[in-house]
Amino acid sequence: MTPTRALARYVVQSRWEELPPPVRHETVRALVNWIGCPIWGSRDAAVARTLAALDPFSGPREAAVLGRAERLDPFKAALVNGVAAAIADYDDTHLETVIHPTGPAACVLLALAERHRMSGAAFLHALALGIEVQCRVARALAVAPARMNGGWYLTGLTGGIGAAVAAGRVLGLDETRMLWAIGIAAARAAGARETHGTMAKNLVAAFAAEDGLMAAFLAQQGMEAPETPIEGRRGLGSLVSDGADFTAMTAGLGQDFELMRNAYKPFPSGIVIHAAITGALELARAHAPDPGSITAVRLTVHPLCLELCGRRTPRTAVEGTFSVYHWVAVALTEREIGIRHFSDAMVNDPAIIALRDRIEARSDPGFRKDEAAITVVLGDGTVCDHHVDHALGAIERPPSDAELGAKLADLVGGILSPARAAELAAACWGLADAPDAGVILRESTLGRS
Amino acid sequence: MTPTRALARYVVQSRWEELPPPVRHETVRALVNWIGCPIWGSRDAAVARTLAALDPFSGPREAAVLGRAERLDPFKAALVNGVAAAIADYDDTHLETVIHPTGPAACVLLALAERHRMSGAAFLHALALGIEVQCRVARALAVAPARMNGGWYLTGLTGGIGAAVAAGRVLGLDETRMLWAIGIAAARAAGARETHGTMAKNLVAAFAAEDGLMAAFLAQQGMEAPETPIEGRRGLGSLVSDGADFTAMTAGLGQDFELMRNAYKPFPSGIVIHAAITGALELARAHAPDPGSITAVRLTVHPLCLELCGRRTPRTAVEGTFSVYHWVAVALTEREIGIRHFSDAMVNDPAIIALRDRIEARSDPGFRKDEAAITVVLGDGTVCDHHVDHALGAIERPPSDAELGAKLADLVGGILSPARAAELAAACWGLADAPDAGVILRESTLGRS
Repeated sequence: MTPTRALARYVVQSRWEELPPPVRHETVRALVNWIGCPIWGSRDAAVARTLAALDPFSGPREAAVLGRAERLDPFKAALVNGVAAAIADYDDTHLETVIHPTGPAACVLLALAERHRMSGAAFLHALALGIEVQCRVARALAVAPARMNGGWYLTGLTGGIGAAVAAGRVLGLDETRMLWAIGIAAARAAGARETHGTMAKNLVAAFAAEDGLMAAFLAQQGMEAPETPIEGRRGLGSLVSDGADFTAMTAGLGQDFELMRNAYKPFPSGIVIHAAITGALELARAHAPDPGSITAVRLTVHPLCLELCGRRTPRTAVEGTFSVYHWVAVALTEREIGIRHFSDAMVNDPAIIALRDRIEARSDPGFRKDEAAITVVLGDGTVCDHHVDHALGAIERPPSDAELGAKLADLVGGILSPARAAELAAACWGLADAPDAGVILRESTLGRS
Repeated sequence: MTPTRALARYVVQSRWEELPPPVRHETVRALVNWIGCPIWGSRDAAVARTLAALDPFSGPREAAVLGRAERLDPFKAALVNGVAAAIADYDDTHLETVIHPTGPAACVLLALAERHRMSGAAFLHALALGIEVQCRVARALAVAPARMNGGWYLTGLTGGIGAAVAAGRVLGLDETRMLWAIGIAAARAAGARETHGTMAKNLVAAFAAEDGLMAAFLAQQGMEAPETPIEGRRGLGSLVSDGADFTAMTAGLGQDFELMRNAYKPFPSGIVIHAAITGALELARAHAPDPGSITAVRLTVHPLCLELCGRRTPRTAVEGTFSVYHWVAVALTEREIGIRHFSDAMVNDPAIIALRDRIEARSDPGFRKDEAAITVVLGDGTVCDHHVDHALGAIERPPSDAELGAKLADLVGGILSPARAAELAAACWGLADAPDAGVILRESTLGRS
């Protein structure tokens, strides 16, 4: 059997009750980690502009825009929520492939949850399958021996496939139609990293969500698609990679879950900065240096940290995401990190800038990506050192359920009332037993009670 | 100035009246050549399935589905008409890049023509710009020294950009917003040739149309996008090609028009078969051999003919498109070619199959792509030879206006009444002087008078 058909068969035959309990719980955690992101992002200009462009064309307004009063047809709701979820790059990361798999799948499920009434378990099951398939396809395209062109935004390439799988599961597609849904999504897979640093970056995963949802509806109606959309001679794999390994799509399927290697960011910054931030936070908490007395900071990090996030003089919150200097200065000054630190004001704060300019960083190819060392020198000659073996948020140091709950509360704090925020968290944690997944929407949108 | 910004500036500053008269007339010809395709295709199962999937989600039904009574919101109308237009692969071909540029641009303009009332000249101008930009971007990606991965369906990669340009022109985008529209479309550019031979092939250009339309509306609302979406380090060019030549995007812009090198197929078959069909038709007309008396046919063609269209035993009309054997048998038997020959029945006709099986083809790398030689041997020993320097439909042998009119009449004959068909043709030929481009829609749809 071809890998894509095997994936389709697995998705169609899988049963929620047969997923190992840790996988089921991790799916809930993925949702709790993620759902604050679109609610927080709902206030961003990119969301307002997307809404302004699409709202006039909405079909039946069967789906909620998270964190807002507007309602849209499911395609447009999936797209707008996808944009909102991407704003702060604060969602999940499958570390081996650096894709962000929850968003595309969750966006289509939330878009469908009112039209297609489903239990909380059905919602979580489709979410788990959507995440798992994305990670597996991403590994096929991007993990050794694959040589994927680094300009591709892999979340865009795989997101539609995961979204199609999640939606297809809710629509009850049979094996062949599930294969077609994957094929239609694969034929539309896209996403250039040239968008990074611009507002349009937020569209890439959002387009993937919309595309996957449409693929599922088209397949449901019998739109025939290739048998080998990913692994075929002219399929997605050969288009974006010189050495795609399609065995990664199915190896250990149903036994070994990539979903368990999906990490949740504790900081709203580039993932490759996390080790340095962890070091700065832990050093600051241990030694409590007065930021004004710091005369020098020396960082040692993995080369990818500086390659991707070595921006010296960010001017906006988004640019700050790519600056290890900015975030280490914030960590040393604030001693804790929340979404409030993702702001243009923070990036332009004179005290933060002054400290940032006293930071030097060097890369060490011997360091792991989640490893960092930091040395802080104070005006009185005191020298503080700290070494981080694994960044907070690494697979070895996952956030606890309580920490994920705190992240959710932090993200929605400015938008939902404390009572509503608490209800949303409770709804997510209890979703597996809820008769109607739509309850999440009722908790996470405004304008509805 | 970067190439994409230069294209955006040109598109925004261009004036219809300043286009050379042959370019303006060729734009009308492109429309006449194309518009029969979606009307003919409107009866295909792929269109019915697309409609079934999308109609329930339609927003304001401001746009017509060509050849049908249904109406949809502009995004969905562009998509459905795009599917219909692709069914028979009978549209235009920019021969150097083998893209089909009219469809994506025309689909968005037809989708907008009722919402945004525009003159016929404005419609044609936007169409010309959409075609021209697609061809130029396609040359940058695919023409020497570019080494584009052959699995890409280039119409899909460039179609959204052309559609965005056409829509952006109608929306009156300024230069920067036009640049953003191109950038958003480029970030969503997709299309795997793995879909070829399946129903989903028809989605690729259709998705491009919808994506380009959405890109224009997003850019209009201020969705910021990259400055160098095609030529940037992680832009579309580097993603799909090892040697993209971005100078092709702007060389001779406004002076030398790729649109003038866009060809119109006289036969509903693969373009690389056209020389062989031309040879068979001309030989059959000159010598009038009884098909039943033909004992052998020998073809000599360019290697690409057999590589792309060497299918020996097609079983469906779509598979027949890729069979030089099938189409040469049809030409020798029927002595003229029309859309009625694109059918499952013709592919399975015992007499056609019997003749097809007596055809041998060899490739000669010394032949041009539009060159062919044919030898027919009859039972009485008669041998007829014919050599084709340029296929019908090649740039050197373009169809006359009358022939394009006949192709349109042939395509719409089973769907529009003769009077309606004549009105449609007249509306297209006279479009440059029409105050309202919407007149095309009124002529080409059913259910409205």
